[in-house]
Amino acid sequence: MMQNEQLDKFFNPKIIAVIGASDRQHSVGGAIFANIKNSAFAGKVVPVNNRAGTVLGVKTFASVADIIEKIDLAIIATPAAAVLGVLDECARAGIPGAVIVSSGFKEAGDRGKKNFAKIQEIAKSRGIRVLGPNCLGFANPKIALNASFAPQCPLPGGIAFISQSGALCDTFLDWSLRDNIGFSHFVSIGSIADIGFAELIEYFNKDKSVNSILLYMESLNDGPKFLNAARAFCRDKPIVCLKAGANAAGAGAAASHTGAIAGDDKIFSAAFDHCGVIRAATVSDLYNYAKTLNHFKKPAGNRLAIITNAGGPGVVSADFLTQNGGQLAKLAAPTIKKLNAIMPSAWSRSNPIDVLGDGTPEHYRAAAAACLEDNNIDGIMAIISPQAVTQSKEIAEQIASLPEIVKKPVFGSFMGAGRVAGGVEIFRQSGIPVYRTPEKAVACFLGLARWQKNLRDSKKLFAKNKSFAPDKERAAMIIRHAMETRQSVIAGESAREILQCYQLPCNMIFPAQNAAQAAKIAKQTGFPVALKLQAKNLLHKTELRGVRLNLAGAAEVKKAFAEIMENARKHLRREDIDGISVEKMIFKKYEIIAGIKKDPVFGPAIIFGAGGTAAEIFGDAAAAIAPLNEFAAKSLMSKTKIFQLLKGYRGENAADIRGLAAFLAKLSRLPVDLPQIKEIDVNPLAVDENGAIALDAKIVIAKS
Amino acid sequence: MMQNEQLDKFFNPKIIAVIGASDRQHSVGGAIFANIKNSAFAGKVVPVNNRAGTVLGVKTFASVADIIEKIDLAIIATPAAAVLGVLDECARAGIPGAVIVSSGFKEAGDRGKKNFAKIQEIAKSRGIRVLGPNCLGFANPKIALNASFAPQCPLPGGIAFISQSGALCDTFLDWSLRDNIGFSHFVSIGSIADIGFAELIEYFNKDKSVNSILLYMESLNDGPKFLNAARAFCRDKPIVCLKAGANAAGAGAAASHTGAIAGDDKIFSAAFDHCGVIRAATVSDLYNYAKTLNHFKKPAGNRLAIITNAGGPGVVSADFLTQNGGQLAKLAAPTIKKLNAIMPSAWSRSNPIDVLGDGTPEHYRAAAAACLEDNNIDGIMAIISPQAVTQSKEIAEQIASLPEIVKKPVFGSFMGAGRVAGGVEIFRQSGIPVYRTPEKAVACFLGLARWQKNLRDSKKLFAKNKSFAPDKERAAMIIRHAMETRQSVIAGESAREILQCYQLPCNMIFPAQNAAQAAKIAKQTGFPVALKLQAKNLLHKTELRGVRLNLAGAAEVKKAFAEIMENARKHLRREDIDGISVEKMIFKKYEIIAGIKKDPVFGPAIIFGAGGTAAEIFGDAAAAIAPLNEFAAKSLMSKTKIFQLLKGYRGENAADIRGLAAFLAKLSRLPVDLPQIKEIDVNPLAVDENGAIALDAKIVIAKS
Repeated sequence: MMQNEQLDKFFNPKIIAVIGASDRQHSVGGAIFANIKNSAFAGKVVPVNNRAGTVLGVKTFASVADIIEKIDLAIIATPAAAVLGVLDECARAGIPGAVIVSSGFKEAGDRGKKNFAKIQEIAKSRGIRVLGPNCLGFANPKIALNASFAPQCPLPGGIAFISQSGALCDTFLDWSLRDNIGFSHFVSIGSIADIGFAELIEYFNKDKSVNSILLYMESLNDGPKFLNAARAFCRDKPIVCLKAGANAAGAGAAASHTGAIAGDDKIFSAAFDHCGVIRAATVSDLYNYAKTLNHFKKPAGNRLAIITNAGGPGVVSADFLTQNGGQLAKLAAPTIKKLNAIMPSAWSRSNPIDVLGDGTPEHYRAAAAACLEDNNIDGIMAIISPQAVTQSKEIAEQIASLPEIVKKPVFGSFMGAGRVAGGVEIFRQSGIPVYRTPEKAVACFLGLARWQKNLRDSKKLFAKNKSFAPDKERAAMIIRHAMETRQSVIAGESAREILQCYQLPCNMIFPAQNAAQAAKIAKQTGFPVALKLQAKNLLHKTELRGVRLNLAGAAEVKKAFAEIMENARKHLRREDIDGISVEKMIFKKYEIIAGIKKDPVFGPAIIFGAGGTAAEIFGDAAAAIAPLNEFAAKSLMSKTKIFQLLKGYRGENAADIRGLAAFLAKLSRLPVDLPQIKEIDVNPLAVDENGAIALDAKIVIAKS
Repeated sequence: MMQNEQLDKFFNPKIIAVIGASDRQHSVGGAIFANIKNSAFAGKVVPVNNRAGTVLGVKTFASVADIIEKIDLAIIATPAAAVLGVLDECARAGIPGAVIVSSGFKEAGDRGKKNFAKIQEIAKSRGIRVLGPNCLGFANPKIALNASFAPQCPLPGGIAFISQSGALCDTFLDWSLRDNIGFSHFVSIGSIADIGFAELIEYFNKDKSVNSILLYMESLNDGPKFLNAARAFCRDKPIVCLKAGANAAGAGAAASHTGAIAGDDKIFSAAFDHCGVIRAATVSDLYNYAKTLNHFKKPAGNRLAIITNAGGPGVVSADFLTQNGGQLAKLAAPTIKKLNAIMPSAWSRSNPIDVLGDGTPEHYRAAAAACLEDNNIDGIMAIISPQAVTQSKEIAEQIASLPEIVKKPVFGSFMGAGRVAGGVEIFRQSGIPVYRTPEKAVACFLGLARWQKNLRDSKKLFAKNKSFAPDKERAAMIIRHAMETRQSVIAGESAREILQCYQLPCNMIFPAQNAAQAAKIAKQTGFPVALKLQAKNLLHKTELRGVRLNLAGAAEVKKAFAEIMENARKHLRREDIDGISVEKMIFKKYEIIAGIKKDPVFGPAIIFGAGGTAAEIFGDAAAAIAPLNEFAAKSLMSKTKIFQLLKGYRGENAADIRGLAAFLAKLSRLPVDLPQIKEIDVNPLAVDENGAIALDAKIVIAKS
């Protein structure tokens, strides 16, 4: 069976067996059986347990093997100890899919982990698809199927919700019933033994009833597959994700600057940017997006019109909008003219459109109608604060009844509780997103606008890169040699050689074994020069005072050589010291850092940031998934603050941005071609108007 | 009458006149009169209007002059045109206070502004205190007085709310009635013709029934008075402020680096830090604090314990806590022991305390009780997600009934809607802050913790500085001279002289009129040297390429002199070019920027940041209100990221932090002593382990 058909049957079963079903109300199996049995679900549900009898009047079977009808879906709600046997039985009985709600696996110590692996083994070898373990189950509201132990079925609608937290499923369900938000699928994905995020996203992409996806994610195991699936989905429909564990360790243990700069969370953000996933920051945020996505329209840009009956909330909203990358739409002349005709004479005449404290439903209607027709406006937010004469219900009705409302995203911010309850209810029923404070609406508008912006760029972002022919063989050979000699870090000449294989400009260095030789080399390259300690497994030279810059004459060179060596011998084993290299000082205006970090989830990422320690100190670095083309490289650079300097700040000449982009694009190919590469630091990467050149580099390679 | 007594009478009137009162329900005057008349307010209210008759059965007067009884408070709700006359009448009738609800003044063009000034004139000359104009009025719930046109009186309680937006008053009122949040005072402050933020804060500080203040602020006119009042209040009780207009212009028009770095909003943040005011970011934020402040306890630190019945929300909360400066409390051994005895065997055994999906009210009670007694814990948040068997009401009852709950801040996060409504209601009635998502509770906990931290530091922050005796006279003379010769910027030697008068170390510069002289000076100071263009009203030398560094010999010096002069002549008038200065190159490890900016609201502020353009590009700068002592200077520095470098990063020696602190403290005295100073740039300020030295400075002075 094709994967798609399998999942189709999984989510649309005709006959379901609930293993562990019982009449005990509070048992998980009992709750699931009752949820299905007592609903409008048109299919059949069969209880399976090892005591003879009936559940809710339906005859039980001791095993799925005893059931003659062909079961489409098994829901396993037995104690953990029985799960493996039951799953095996299901597979032998030819059941194509199973939900394992039982816990006691991945989260439950070594024994649990072992049994988790066994679930995976059974799923793989016998071809039975498994959701869970340790999940609530799922719901398919379209067919009134609540195959979970959540107490109600969500309303039908367009949002597919996938959550790694069952509690978040329960919470969102409860909120959504109040807010009239509908779901195409509601999936508690659990510990992900088999069916994962990527596969579900792929499946939902083929389902026209799905208009968007909301994710709560704690872990991801197949990053590249997720990237592809999410990118494909986001071409047409948005995904919003709350990623937990943002503060997890990872950055601390890194073996290079690049690694230290790019914590796991930065890579997750880069991955989400890569495919156009909107990232939510908090639980509220994620749910706020559910309101917006319920019946969303795509904004053409980030220009918002704000209609308000109060100055303060208008100011606050405008602040929030512009601080977060949006624009206050400039009203077109015809809009102002239309509004002059109907608004109170003291109306603001600009955006925010202040209809004043006694603004009537007709004022709101006129303002909204004018904004819907104004091409300078990409979205509209109506703020309704509970003033003396405010008729929140009638205002909501007037806005909701505008036929043109389908043209643009429209948001309501009904501030207050009881006094605006009427308006809130009208918007909920009309499917217009409604919030209690304006900033929440603005945040959701901006999220959609960023998704659309990303989409507009995506053709260029993913265009094929300029072809170039690196000397992959030679680079691979240097890496092989390092691995054979058990070096985990390639630095010095070898590192530069690898860069040169990929046509990346480097400042050459020359090894010197003693002070006299160093001085001789310096005379040849020309003063001033720099001396740098070269040693095995040496990562941060500055910590060992192994770098001396700007040496202007032979005497200085000799003295520095002696000092570096003396200090190195104090801290390193003699056999680890390779010598001291001499290089000409290169004076370029800007020093930046570029690097590669292989992420355990997403594979190689490329990092770009401000030079030296500044990247760490100021946190001015951005990451992108490798490989990237020159357009994507420029987009990566533009996410840093240092890019403002590089573009030419306060009358300075711009640096060679195209050269830099080419450098990054070529660099990003390295870890893709040579998977042994774990990390690369090009630090510093010097750049000015005439080009970019690597002044030092080190490459960390995997142990095996 | 003393100011305090005046405000006391203002907020606690016995007899009130409502000018503009009428029987028309929807008129503002009618609404106010009805609000007072139809309430439990024990005092008397008299309608005043120019038509004879009665309002709600009470005989009207044509003018306050006709009323024989002594009126304590006048509420003026007439059209704008009548306000000045009415106010004058009130003052002549000896009425000590008036609320002007009418709009049409400060916000209404030139004519409105003029009449606004007239209100101020009457208030000042006749001693009548004025709230407004353009406001809702106020409420004093303790005496059941709703002297506003908001439709209900807030509940009595401890929070004083002052808002410059009437709509926010309406909104908060509506929410607070639902959430059982009480207020000591509810003040719609309007355009602030007379009674302002500072005075109200001072007054509330003397009122024991006030436990905290919430502010919504759009503008402030008396910064220093606000700072003093807020600082005094915050010593014991918290203030939370939402400041609107954060994105307003200001930064763009600045005449120096320092000015460009420190926009108005940064100064507002500095001012709030100065006095310990907690800054809210959004309307939701501000209201979330209202929930917390309703009956708050002071946290001893920032260590939070999280009790949860679900893993996901626990992870998300822990992320949010640690990302925002809080700590996940480490449970003490006795706490773990206690919990082992009662918790389900699979409980987390660490913080977050996961009582698992079937956690009972008794589990929550036991966990909360143990946390209340654990000295490693400064605050507690209970997350209740709506799982299958969750009894939210009983959980809330168990927690709320703990007698030790008064010991620490306790927060509830009841996730969901209908299914946790029971628990939410219990917490609301018990006065325990309750939120729908955990991040909101964490944010409020951290706000309180920061306030307490600030308080603990405040003795040191405001200790008297080391005495030093600057040569104030000489500095003043230089400034006078510049003003007489119509220079708006003092640079070069004169600027350094002023710094030296304040014992601030400077690198000396020597003026050269021609290339030969420059070379001669360079030989005397020793190579390498730097040349810098000195010209009148010149702000950013680098833009004009007026700076040459690292010149190693006489020939280089001569060439550079010629090039700078040639370029300067292209861009500047000859008479504005003062010459070129020569100075010895100083090689110090770090270059930072220090400066002064005189803020129109708060007066002089001191700015500290990363060197050169980095401060602007990376935004790595912080501000503080001047003057400051060395402890406060260190605290200012610690708010920047560059401070990590200065403290000694990756094995480097630390810079002379004490020297830097002394430099900043002395620098901060300059604008206090010499109020003509508008801005100062000390840029770069070079520093290493041996001290700090100003390499260049410029001082912008006020025109008059």
